Amino acid sequence: MNHATKAYAATSPDSGLGPYAFDRRDLRADDVAIEIDYCGVCHTDIHFVENDWGMTQYPVVPGHEVIGRVTAVGPDVKGFQEGDTVGVGCMVDSCRSCSACESGLEQYCLEGMTLTYNGQDRHDGSITFGGYSTRIVVSDRFVVRVPDALDPAKAAPLLCAGITTYSPLRHHGVGPGHKVGVIGMGGLGHMGVKFAKALGAEVTIFTRSEAKVREAQKQGADHVIVSTDEAQMEAAADTFDFMLDTVPVQHDLNPYLNCLKYDGTHILVGLLEPIEPPLDAGGLVFKRRVLAGSLIGGMPETQEVLDFCAEHNITCDVEMLDIRNVNEAYERMKKGDVKYRFVIDTATLR
Amino acid sequence: MNHATKAYAATSPDSGLGPYAFDRRDLRADDVAIEIDYCGVCHTDIHFVENDWGMTQYPVVPGHEVIGRVTAVGPDVKGFQEGDTVGVGCMVDSCRSCSACESGLEQYCLEGMTLTYNGQDRHDGSITFGGYSTRIVVSDRFVVRVPDALDPAKAAPLLCAGITTYSPLRHHGVGPGHKVGVIGMGGLGHMGVKFAKALGAEVTIFTRSEAKVREAQKQGADHVIVSTDEAQMEAAADTFDFMLDTVPVQHDLNPYLNCLKYDGTHILVGLLEPIEPPLDAGGLVFKRRVLAGSLIGGMPETQEVLDFCAEHNITCDVEMLDIRNVNEAYERMKKGDVKYRFVIDTATLR
Repeated sequence: MNHATKAYAATSPDSGLGPYAFDRRDLRADDVAIEIDYCGVCHTDIHFVENDWGMTQYPVVPGHEVIGRVTAVGPDVKGFQEGDTVGVGCMVDSCRSCSACESGLEQYCLEGMTLTYNGQDRHDGSITFGGYSTRIVVSDRFVVRVPDALDPAKAAPLLCAGITTYSPLRHHGVGPGHKVGVIGMGGLGHMGVKFAKALGAEVTIFTRSEAKVREAQKQGADHVIVSTDEAQMEAAADTFDFMLDTVPVQHDLNPYLNCLKYDGTHILVGLLEPIEPPLDAGGLVFKRRVLAGSLIGGMPETQEVLDFCAEHNITCDVEMLDIRNVNEAYERMKKGDVKYRFVIDTATLR
Repeated sequence: MNHATKAYAATSPDSGLGPYAFDRRDLRADDVAIEIDYCGVCHTDIHFVENDWGMTQYPVVPGHEVIGRVTAVGPDVKGFQEGDTVGVGCMVDSCRSCSACESGLEQYCLEGMTLTYNGQDRHDGSITFGGYSTRIVVSDRFVVRVPDALDPAKAAPLLCAGITTYSPLRHHGVGPGHKVGVIGMGGLGHMGVKFAKALGAEVTIFTRSEAKVREAQKQGADHVIVSTDEAQMEAAADTFDFMLDTVPVQHDLNPYLNCLKYDGTHILVGLLEPIEPPLDAGGLVFKRRVLAGSLIGGMPETQEVLDFCAEHNITCDVEMLDIRNVNEAYERMKKGDVKYRFVIDTATLR
């Protein structure tokens, strides 16, 4: 049994690993019980399942792009009722009283947010289990409403891939008149294109391969630049206001920095490793450019992105997944072979 | 004759190298002729004199912290008249019509600013000569007024060291309630402390050496952290709004990033090289931190910093220099042995 199987097994009634995913806690006063319908598969799930970051606590039940229906609520819950279609993203709790939490930026909670899976519950110390499951119980502050206009299956990835790209574009004020480059065309990148377009910007996809140009155009980009073509990159020097960099592996940032105007901003949302080849400080100093990071989004903004998508008719491009094929899906994701997000149909788990 | 001697020789009447520094152009319609009284010595001067960047055109006359008196003006000059005390900083021209120039950010001119020395005049193609000299002729747009309240000798370094640290603090909105760290305590760093204090921030100097703590306190810092002391650095984690990093050589940025709150900003004003050890992208992403560059300041802001200094009684700490000792001064600067800026007394050149 490989790690991915282990992840799946933990969610399966015949896994022999016990009832981890099904034995959810009794409702606390502010809890919402959710019957899960769909769960997006994020690359982060693979990292946890395979313990790439050395912090996985097995058995792990991944999944932080969760869509379902409310089946019960605790006595203090005001905003949700049975039957509501709702979502749960990357976090299920935070301290709720620090400056970040009070600003609705729970992802930057000074005490650390509680992750939706492989996190530690703040009340009973138990390890949290995620959305590759049939049920989940979450405090109402960390539950969002899914607008009727959204297809629930295609809305699932908005809870991580969506908010991760929407939040920095909003935070940095992207809008009409701006030229935005999107680097990487996976689950995050293709959402970034949709959001930047909807916000009124002129959008260019940077792709390493000539073969992907057509697909990039299909995603609605105004322009495509093949980043391995030095002439194209040189022609783009000093022309962009923003770069949204969704690439999750080490890559040379300097050619992209060079494409930014003075005061331009390069936003990292995928990379968590040391920046190599090394970042050229002169590329920042000589043009007052900025390199910024961004992590998912807070709960008010997670609700906002769903509402924004409903209003602008935006969803994620998804491929529906039978949970029994999750291991093959992981292998395909490692090769970038999915357009653009797998979403588990939870019916296949029942 | 070493390079520093070469630099000096070019400014000396008996150098045998010709009248480069003295044969300044006839006044153009918008020109201001200036008799130089003082010129600060910037570390950049050493880089040019020694051709560290491979772009020096000898003979070079360094100096871009110039203070003097107006001796004549061209017919179109409205803002200056004979006898005015004025300053010239790092640039003497730009295209004047691009978006940067129109925003008063001539240092980011899309065509490139004309440097005060080792630049190329936009009209006649001649190489520009700087302030280690008795006279300079500069277009009025690139001349600033020195308020009466400022000691002219101590004002000279405001034109580079001063504006370089003032501009990013203003641009990023540093003010009361902010905690600012200043990294490096040389010509730039000690000015950064004065500005951040005057802007109302709580200021901490980071120094590598216990021996410099007392000197750091003398500079007006509220706190001093010895950056080589891991316990002190760990205690400072997540507590700063801004870092003003004036260190001009490669150094590990990650321990300082770790001291920033979420949404905190690390500002580079000294480093122009590749960032090594590599910057940890996770340090930016997990806290939405920002790494920003900044280069001197535009002409309106260069005037502003002089006015600000007059109002707040701020000047640079200087050591007066006889031009005949410039080589020794360079050697001392390489060892960090100056508090905090040498200023050439131009009387020693006459």
